[in-house]
Amino acid sequence: MDPDSLAKAFVEHYYSTFDTNRGGLASLYQDASMLTFEGQKIQGSSNIVAKLNSLPFQQCNHSISTVDCQPSGPAGGMIVFVSGNLQLAGEQHALKFSQVSN
Amino acid sequence: MDPDSLAKAFVEHYYSTFDTNRGGLASLYQDASMLTFEGQKIQGSSNIVAKLNSLPFQQCNHSISTVDCQPSGPAGGMIVFVSGNLQLAGEQHALKFSQVSN
Repeated sequence: MDPDSLAKAFVEHYYSTFDTNRGGLASLYQDASMLTFEGQKIQGSSNIVAKLNSLPFQQCNHSISTVDCQPSGPAGGMIVFVSGNLQLAGEQHALKFSQVSN
Repeated sequence: MDPDSLAKAFVEHYYSTFDTNRGGLASLYQDASMLTFEGQKIQGSSNIVAKLNSLPFQQCNHSISTVDCQPSGPAGGMIVFVSGNLQLAGEQHALKFSQVSN
């Protein structure tokens, strides 16, 4: 699978998990993982999932607008940059979001 | 200097160079550097600067809204995520932009 297709598949998996089973994101993070969320740094899979579970909305739907990826580091890693819309249940207007994964 | 201050200083330097002397960005990229610009991958300092010089506007002003950084890789690198507004000369409304550096 080429890197762009891999990045797209990862992004689809990440956000469909976010939207349907937020706790399932735990398996996509490790102890060394860090999430920076609106300026706050959160380290470790369990802390990250606790943060995502504490967000002030339950039902949400991410729709992806762009996925860009680049090679990162000597071990064959990737940086993935995503932008899109986040629709919250009961809200008329979608929010814009963007996120980077490494 | 702590990582957040370093990231902020880098971002201010990058965009003030972009806005006043776009060719000067060459020194901030290497041959292995990659720019992904609206889905297009461009590799190498000279190709990146040529792309930035070819953008269909001359005068512009970036104003930074957020700067987030995280450690990246074993060698003490950083990922920096920036969002902000891009004002083009003669345009009434600013564009939103976001960019990631590694």
